[in-house]
Order: sequence, then C-alpha cells, then structure tokens
Amino acid sequence: MMEKGISSVEVLPSKSSQVTAVKVVVKEPETKQTQRGKRVGFVLVHAGAGYHSESKAKEYKHVCKRACQKAIEKLQAGALATDAVTAALIELEDSPFTNAGMGSNLNLLGEIECDASIMDGKSLNFGAVGALSGIKNPVSVANRLLCEGQKGKLSAGRIPPCFLVGEGAFRWAVDHGIPACPPGIMATRFSLAAFKRNKRKLELAEKVETDLIQLKKRRQSNEKGSRVMCRMCGRRSKASGGNTGGGQIKLYSLENDSGTLDTVGAVVVDQEGNVAAAVSSGGLALKHPGRVGQAALYGCGCWAENTGAHTPYSTAVSTSGCGEHLVRTILARECSCALQTEDAHQALLETMQNKFIVEFLWSHTTESMCVGYMSAQDGKAKTHISRLPPGAVAGQSVAIEGGVCRLESPES
Amino acid sequence: MMEKGISSVEVLPSKSSQVTAVKVVVKEPETKQTQRGKRVGFVLVHAGAGYHSESKAKEYKHVCKRACQKAIEKLQAGALATDAVTAALIELEDSPFTNAGMGSNLNLLGEIECDASIMDGKSLNFGAVGALSGIKNPVSVANRLLCEGQKGKLSAGRIPPCFLVGEGAFRWAVDHGIPACPPGIMATRFSLAAFKRNKRKLELAEKVETDLIQLKKRRQSNEKGSRVMCRMCGRRSKASGGNTGGGQIKLYSLENDSGTLDTVGAVVVDQEGNVAAAVSSGGLALKHPGRVGQAALYGCGCWAENTGAHTPYSTAVSTSGCGEHLVRTILARECSCALQTEDAHQALLETMQNKFIVEFLWSHTTESMCVGYMSAQDGKAKTHISRLPPGAVAGQSVAIEGGVCRLESPES
Repeated sequence: MMEKGISSVEVLPSKSSQVTAVKVVVKEPETKQTQRGKRVGFVLVHAGAGYHSESKAKEYKHVCKRACQKAIEKLQAGALATDAVTAALIELEDSPFTNAGMGSNLNLLGEIECDASIMDGKSLNFGAVGALSGIKNPVSVANRLLCEGQKGKLSAGRIPPCFLVGEGAFRWAVDHGIPACPPGIMATRFSLAAFKRNKRKLELAEKVETDLIQLKKRRQSNEKGSRVMCRMCGRRSKASGGNTGGGQIKLYSLENDSGTLDTVGAVVVDQEGNVAAAVSSGGLALKHPGRVGQAALYGCGCWAENTGAHTPYSTAVSTSGCGEHLVRTILARECSCALQTEDAHQALLETMQNKFIVEFLWSHTTESMCVGYMSAQDGKAKTHISRLPPGAVAGQSVAIEGGVCRLESPES
Repeated sequence: MMEKGISSVEVLPSKSSQVTAVKVVVKEPETKQTQRGKRVGFVLVHAGAGYHSESKAKEYKHVCKRACQKAIEKLQAGALATDAVTAALIELEDSPFTNAGMGSNLNLLGEIECDASIMDGKSLNFGAVGALSGIKNPVSVANRLLCEGQKGKLSAGRIPPCFLVGEGAFRWAVDHGIPACPPGIMATRFSLAAFKRNKRKLELAEKVETDLIQLKKRRQSNEKGSRVMCRMCGRRSKASGGNTGGGQIKLYSLENDSGTLDTVGAVVVDQEGNVAAAVSSGGLALKHPGRVGQAALYGCGCWAENTGAHTPYSTAVSTSGCGEHLVRTILARECSCALQTEDAHQALLETMQNKFIVEFLWSHTTESMCVGYMSAQDGKAKTHISRLPPGAVAGQSVAIEGGVCRLESPES
C-alpha cells in the first residue's frame, strides 16, 4: 500500500453543524486487471463525530483497529463489500465506548433505541432500521433487510421491506433468526450513570425554566398592578420592571454518553472493486422515544455507488454528527456526487494512472474524529485521531485529511 | 385565474416504477407587488397513484374538490401554506376512498400504520411520522412536529425531533393534545373486506409455493435415485426431469384497498408566496408491521423550497407510487431541482412576465391519477382524472399534464 497524506484546515464562512464524513474513491481505469480477480480490499472506519478525550484515545484507536481487521479478514475470505462493512460495524457496535449498539445513549424513558443503515454500491440496494430495541447489532438487521430485498418479491408479489422501525423491526429480525438481546444487557455502567446525570440536569433545567416563567408572570402582574394604580391617579406610567431574566436562561447542556460521540460508520472496497457503506447510532441522549435520526435515512447516513454510466468513480460515504442537519442536506449522497467531479488531488492520482487506486478522506467540524483504515496488503490497521488545530473553533472550521493508496493485486 | 393546458404523453425507454408527481412553480419577478400583501393563494391536490375506477370517479373528484376548498378557506383566512396544506391533507385522509388515514390499507396483522410528512418552503423545516397507529390524521402530527421544531431547542438544549415512529410517535402526539383514535374506527367495511380477500390470496399463494417446492424436492430425489441406479450399472445418465414448474409460480397479486391507490398529497402557495407540500399514506396492503415508506422520508415524499439565492423559483412537489422506487430516486427533491432549470413552458410564461404566476404539473406512469386544483379567486375547485391514452401501457408511458395560472392580487 502506497500512501500519501493530505491535510488541510479551512475556515467556514459561517457556523456550521457538526458534520463528519468519510469518503472513498476507487479509480479503476483497467477493467481487465479487475476481471483477473483476487483484488485486495480496503476499509476505512470511524468511531463517531465529537470529542475524543485523550484519556480514552487508546480505546477509540483499539476499536477502530479491530473493526478494520474484522473487515479485512472477511475480504480476504472472499466476502462481498456489504458483509465486510457489516463485520466492521458489528465491532464498532460491540464497543462500550461508542454510541452504537452496546453502550448507546439512553432515551427519555431510559431505553436504548438504535438506528442503522447499509448501502450496496453494486445493486444500489439499501437496508435500514430505526428506533430498534432488543437487538445487539442493529447493522446486522439492516444488512439482512438488504440481502432479503435482493432476493426479489415475497409470496403473492409483495415487495420486500427495506426500512423497518420499532417493534415491527424487532419482530422481523427475530423471525429471520437474529437473536433477541435481553433488556438491560446493552446499557453499560457508563451509559446508565450518564443517563442519571442527564436526567438530573434536565429536571434542574426544567425547574429553572418554570421558575423563570413564574417570575416573569409575577413581574408582569406587578407591572399591571402598578399601571392600574397610575390610572387611578389619572397618569400613564411605564412600570420599571427591570430585566426579567428571560434571555438569561442558563442551559444545562446534556452530555452524550461516551463523551459526545455520534454515529459510527465504515466504507469498504472489496476484491472485485465493489463499494459498500454502513452507519449505526444510538441517537441523542434523552431523545424522545420513537425518534429516528440520520443513521437510518436513505441518502443521509451512508451512500455507496459503483462506477457506472453516470458515475466515473465508485464512491462510498458515511456521515456522523448532528442528525437534523445531516438529514437536511442529504449529506452522504451529496458528498458522493461531489466526489464524482472533485479533482483536488488529481496531481497525486496522475502519478498512478494505470493502477487500482483508493482515495480516502475524512473531514470534521467537530473537535476531533477517530478513524482507522487498512488495506488487505497491510499487516495491521492504522488509526488516527484528527483534531482541529489550536485556535480553531468547532463548528466554524473544517479539517480535511486523507490519503491515496494503490492496492497491489497479487497477480500483478 | 388565467389558465392554459399542457398535455403530453411520452414513451419511456424502459419499464419504470409507478411514479406520480405534482409540481408547483411560482414565478415572482416583482417582489414589491408581493410585499403589498394580500396575495391570493393556490392549491393542487391528488388522491393517489393507481387506478381510479369509473364507478368511483365521482367520489375521487368530490374528495379532491373538498380538499381544495378546505385549503383555500384557510388561505383566505390568512393561514400559512403549511396550515393550508395540512387542511387539504386532513380532508384526503378522512375520505374512506383514499389509502391514507381513515380506510388505509391494513398490514399483515390487520392493523393500520400510517406514514406522513410535510415541508415548509420558507424555513425548509420538515416534520414526519412513520408506522403511526391510533391517530386519525397522521399529517396533523407531522405538522405539529414541524411547528414545534420551529420554536427552537427544548429544555436543557435538546434538539426537538422532526421524525418520530411507532409507539413513540403516538405518545408524542397524545402528549401534544392530538386526540387518540380508538382502534377499529379507522378501518372501513371496504378495507376490512379487502384485508380478508388479500389474506386468503396470500395463504393460497404460499400454499402453491410450498407445494411447488415439495414437488421440486420429490423430483430431485427421484432424479438422484435414477442417477444412483445408473451408477450401479456403471453408466452416467442425465435424469429426464422435465419442467419442475419452478419458473411458473402464478402470482396471486394482492389488491390494495380503494382499488390500487397510494399516497395522497397536496402543494400550496399562500398569500405571501410561500410554498408547502405534504403527503400521507397507509402504505402497501399486508405490509410488514413497522414498515416505513416514502411518504415519511425526507426528500422522497414531498419537497418545498421558497425562492432564494440558489433557487430562482419557489417549488413544491409531492410524489406517489411504489415507495421503494420513489425512495431510491429521492424523487420529490429531484423534481424540485429539475423545476429550477426547466423551461419547457417558457413560451407560455413569457406572455405574463410581470405577474405572479403559478405553473402546475402532474405526471403519472400509472393508469390514472385524480387531481384537484383551485386558486383563491375561483368559486370552486376543478378536478380531473388523467388517464393514459388507449394503447399506452402503465409503467412504460408517462402522461404529463398541467397548466399555468396568473393569480390576481385584489389590489392590482
């Protein structure tokens, strides 16, 4: 694997949402070489947007490394991109340090409800689950929906589902042989402690807000009272109310478990050059039950598209960050489209014109991002925690890093 | 209201999915006129893609007419586009003849689970519900989510939800004062009868498939037996199995209730020129519980965008048809983008350069489509059932119809 680094920090014109994207571009001018088969694969994973504390940096790197290795093992055994990306996601979900699967944020009722989705670049098929409880690895249900969808119509010509939510999604998973996970297993000591702290903060914030509203009402009624008095003496008067404090409500911001991490994701290129992307998330801390975020939504959480008539490059994207903003921009798909025309790193690529090349990028407007990547030629995964440079303000600056690697085919 | 008709039928290069789209374009070169206020509004509704039987044509036209009138009444009372479009949708949902709200298709368990979404072109805010049971008007929950979202953050800095599903969505609705609908009220005599017929068809289809698989197995084991015999006599032989019938499974296609209708929708332009779009659907007949279709998904079911820096025209779109295909294309948003550059009807528009103009279109690849439209100057709504011309094959041809109307301002 040959590799060259790219790193830049741009200042955004306006405060942006927390957005993290991982992108892979496959440039494959020699189709004959591909057909000769036994291509080696590539995987890039991320542990979620947010802040990665120095104290837990080792853990984040470890889980990224393990996720990469799981995917590469699958690829080396001849698995398709979708199965390899699922293997990587299962590893990320199983870590108690990520906000996905095990150790996910708890919702308002103290329950875990997960979102996950997967996209196959070859068939453009998609599978997703939303607000799913009681399943240890939500991504495996999403992948199973994708697989079942590829088998064609159900009995009596029914169209197979690609997006299931809640209790119905749980039932479908169990009916398809995915084991149910007993309640309570998926919450960790950390996530339960964070839930309790968050609940206290919420109660406190609501108490403060109620007090302020009452204070405001009392002042308004005093004001009204003083006006009446003035009217009694025949003069109009402005009551000198002073600051009601309405604009000074102190927000007791909630902490998300595992620091402030969000959706985890991975992108994979398999031996045949097919791409796949997948994401998984426990959602926001204390979210309303039934809330579905970007990780479950088509075009928002992940996108994968093999090279075709309208797409010169194969691309796969996974996103992370503040769900509502990612949904608005349909970010994953937008990034994929942008990559089709982007030639920022053309100079690097031209030196390796006739080879099978993967260009990989990650970018974040959050304080930090932990990624791991590995090609099948590598003995082990590389991991990296990317941080905004000193002085850069989260949400106002974007850091873009990445590299290019040439994947050697065993035969070449 | 001045109006000119546009009608065309194009033959598609390949068999396409059932797609129905309604589009509104507002061309508004004179912003001063708009600011003078008291603009009159416009609404365009549709009763769902599919086949509209001649026998029920009157009913479809009636419900479209009532939906238009409800929206116009709201607009005349000064309501915003989002509230007017919600009023139209409630009327469509309340009709037992549409596959939305009352009389929706029943799922595999005989329950009603609805999807609905709404988009505000001014704020680009979005609200949606998926797999929602026990609420008579799902669109009112979607609209409430949109409204609550526009109020800003919740206590302790929490981001308000814009997409809720299942039980959590139901709880949220009830907590926000939307009345629960007792189970059984929303199913109609027609929808229950169709459910029973569909269940019988499904059982029959599954029995036929099981029989065929057993027949195939028996033949394979006979074949194996004959091969063993041949081996015993030392010769390799192909068993003359004949046709196993595997490719000849007769599909017992399900009927969707209310004929084969799908998602209903509406687009609205309010007095200030703001646009809004909304859709609502009961989903596929005998769908898996928890299945969420395009009507709930951002960019797929509806799209609305006021004129802005990057959008010369205000556009609003609602789609209907086979959910999985609409989702794949993120059709509503794509149509909206296409309308920004489309100048097919430029000649018509140029004759009315300096006026407030609405261009409206509908298109379908299904056999028929029932639409209604009305401007605030009109005494009553116009309705129309558009059908593919004789000889045109559903899924292979697309019919495009529409018109242009100049909305007169009372002051001008």
